[in-house]
Amino acid sequence: MRGFARRTTVANTLEWLDRQVSSLAAESVPLRELAGRVLANDIVSEVAVPAFTRSMMDGYAVLANDTLGASAYNRLALQVVGEVLPGQPPRVCVRAGEAVRIMTGAPMPDGADAVLPVEKVETSGTQIFAQDAVPAGKNVGAVGEDIPRGSTLLPAGRRLRPQDLGVLSSIGVTQAAVIRRPRVRIVLTGNELLPPGSTPQEFQTVDANSPMLAALIVRDGGLPLNPGILPDDPDSILEAMRDDADIVLVSGGSSVGQEDHAPVLLAKHGQLGVHGVAMRPSSPTGMGTLGDRLVFLLPGNPVSCLCAYDFFAGRAIRALGGLPSTWPYRKAQYPLRRKLVSTVGRLDYARVKLIDGQAEPLAISGASMLSSTTRADGFVVIDDDLEGYADGAEVTVHLYDLP
Amino acid sequence: MRGFARRTTVANTLEWLDRQVSSLAAESVPLRELAGRVLANDIVSEVAVPAFTRSMMDGYAVLANDTLGASAYNRLALQVVGEVLPGQPPRVCVRAGEAVRIMTGAPMPDGADAVLPVEKVETSGTQIFAQDAVPAGKNVGAVGEDIPRGSTLLPAGRRLRPQDLGVLSSIGVTQAAVIRRPRVRIVLTGNELLPPGSTPQEFQTVDANSPMLAALIVRDGGLPLNPGILPDDPDSILEAMRDDADIVLVSGGSSVGQEDHAPVLLAKHGQLGVHGVAMRPSSPTGMGTLGDRLVFLLPGNPVSCLCAYDFFAGRAIRALGGLPSTWPYRKAQYPLRRKLVSTVGRLDYARVKLIDGQAEPLAISGASMLSSTTRADGFVVIDDDLEGYADGAEVTVHLYDLP
Repeated sequence: MRGFARRTTVANTLEWLDRQVSSLAAESVPLRELAGRVLANDIVSEVAVPAFTRSMMDGYAVLANDTLGASAYNRLALQVVGEVLPGQPPRVCVRAGEAVRIMTGAPMPDGADAVLPVEKVETSGTQIFAQDAVPAGKNVGAVGEDIPRGSTLLPAGRRLRPQDLGVLSSIGVTQAAVIRRPRVRIVLTGNELLPPGSTPQEFQTVDANSPMLAALIVRDGGLPLNPGILPDDPDSILEAMRDDADIVLVSGGSSVGQEDHAPVLLAKHGQLGVHGVAMRPSSPTGMGTLGDRLVFLLPGNPVSCLCAYDFFAGRAIRALGGLPSTWPYRKAQYPLRRKLVSTVGRLDYARVKLIDGQAEPLAISGASMLSSTTRADGFVVIDDDLEGYADGAEVTVHLYDLP
Repeated sequence: MRGFARRTTVANTLEWLDRQVSSLAAESVPLRELAGRVLANDIVSEVAVPAFTRSMMDGYAVLANDTLGASAYNRLALQVVGEVLPGQPPRVCVRAGEAVRIMTGAPMPDGADAVLPVEKVETSGTQIFAQDAVPAGKNVGAVGEDIPRGSTLLPAGRRLRPQDLGVLSSIGVTQAAVIRRPRVRIVLTGNELLPPGSTPQEFQTVDANSPMLAALIVRDGGLPLNPGILPDDPDSILEAMRDDADIVLVSGGSSVGQEDHAPVLLAKHGQLGVHGVAMRPSSPTGMGTLGDRLVFLLPGNPVSCLCAYDFFAGRAIRALGGLPSTWPYRKAQYPLRRKLVSTVGRLDYARVKLIDGQAEPLAISGASMLSSTTRADGFVVIDDDLEGYADGAEVTVHLYDLP
């Protein structure tokens, strides 16, 4: 049993971490499951949209020339010679003095070069009276106007939005190559822990970390693998660290006590890149590699576990999945209601509650209070070159609530 | 075939809409599926956390008094008389001059009132040397310190965060009552439309709206129901509008043309609350009620469909699900690279691209360009009391990319 000889700064830890991660390989995913996924390749359209000249309004396909000078006070008569419906080939042709009834999205009939909207027309039997002039091309969608054939529609790296799925559908895409989602194995150890869903017992605590970690992993685009709590023995932990996963999160047993097997195992069978970080909470955090896997040793204490996840593991999960490695939290500036004290050489993660437009640091005796993260509206990071913030200072609050 | 006699302002439309919606009833959901769900009731803890006095550090349980004056230069010897492990009842008692080895999370043995961290200790056989003083209570978690028994832990209306799942697990919660997710039926009409996954054909367009709407509904916490494209006939549309759903989105046939059945059906069989909105795009939007269902008539044009969804349908879906009705988009201020022209009496939804820290309005001939929403980084709303924004004006951009 020994303390940490020295702690790595958060900046150096992030530097180590960023050297280890690059985005995963691609997989093919059907259109309806693409929202939020990250494109592995550019999407180039093999078709033009629209594929035919079409009306953009309900109204009348006309020769623009015929409407010249038309107004409410100078209504110009046109003869309606037919109708074009969406999805059907136009079987009629428009000549001078004529109009063809047309629906939004229907192909333009030959001869016509503009669409007079229905609102600008009075009808009388088979005649219409134009009450407005339309220039050539007005309310007409040209071939390829929305998407030219051969154009790059969406770039590699794009996180697909709902409207992107619409565009992909419209060019006939049925599936696309996207970055594979990282598989993240949660390894929970602790003989004192009861599985989620248990009733707390004397001297035993119900595992808070695996439900929290699973939700965080999903938020960050990963696939959580969470078969249950392991006994605190080296063989079980090593076997679990070798599971088929891209990232392993070991929660508990991350420090330097004799029951803290994970750091020893990682150093022996893989590489222990960082162990002990100059931050509060979460200083017993470690990380390293085991084969192709990136392994994070997260403190068992739930607040430290959350903080270490957010600083390091979440960043890696997002980066492997092709997402921005930055936090998903919204940021806002608030004045502090009370000073926040830290120590130079150590980064602090301070939970705050928003009260009357100010950030109130939560008084907490230690890192252990998971309820401090549920009472808090967000957190303030005090960088390791600062002694803290004075009462009233403007600070950046990272808000826990996602939009 | 007629134009809209008058259009309702966006403000009045939202007022009508907000009168129709209140959050749905509760359903019970297991712990592991609670992330992002909205609590229907307060959560009151039936247990205290911790349930026992416990160590917050790896180290030695001691009498604080015994460490008085200890420092690196004044090491005080204590006799190690035993060990306490997490999850196990302490079978040893600490008296003056004694220490008990203890792990983080383990119950404090009788007699001891502080924990001396392992880093502050040197060991020599069964003796330790304290190199620091600890006050009474130091590194000790009291019963109920994190969560007192009977305390309200999370309020009704809370959108559950990952750490909330951790807290719920730690108090033995296995499921919770949350607001039911709204069931949203997508009704797609259009004889010219091919289903998603088709290759575009001459004069036929592949449906872009249903994949987009399904993704938007999921984003806003709803459950999309999307059995496919309907023919443009009144009986099919009415039957679909009567499906078992909380909200019906009819895309296409929302205007005042003779093929626009949905508004007529809604007026006849339910209530057509609003039809025609003073906005661009999306002016042919309508909405009403049919039995208990809220029905939205969204324009078939994909950009108009997106805009009308975001202004009205998404708002209702979020509100029914107990979420804030505001947009999920982040906002940021940017100067315009080019003026944006609008008309008093009409609200505009203008897509912009961010270039060198400025917002460039996308030059588009009409509302039809779905690719304008994929090329855009976000949109600017020009309220209906404005004629637009001048070149260089600071505008609020709503960013399409979610964090």
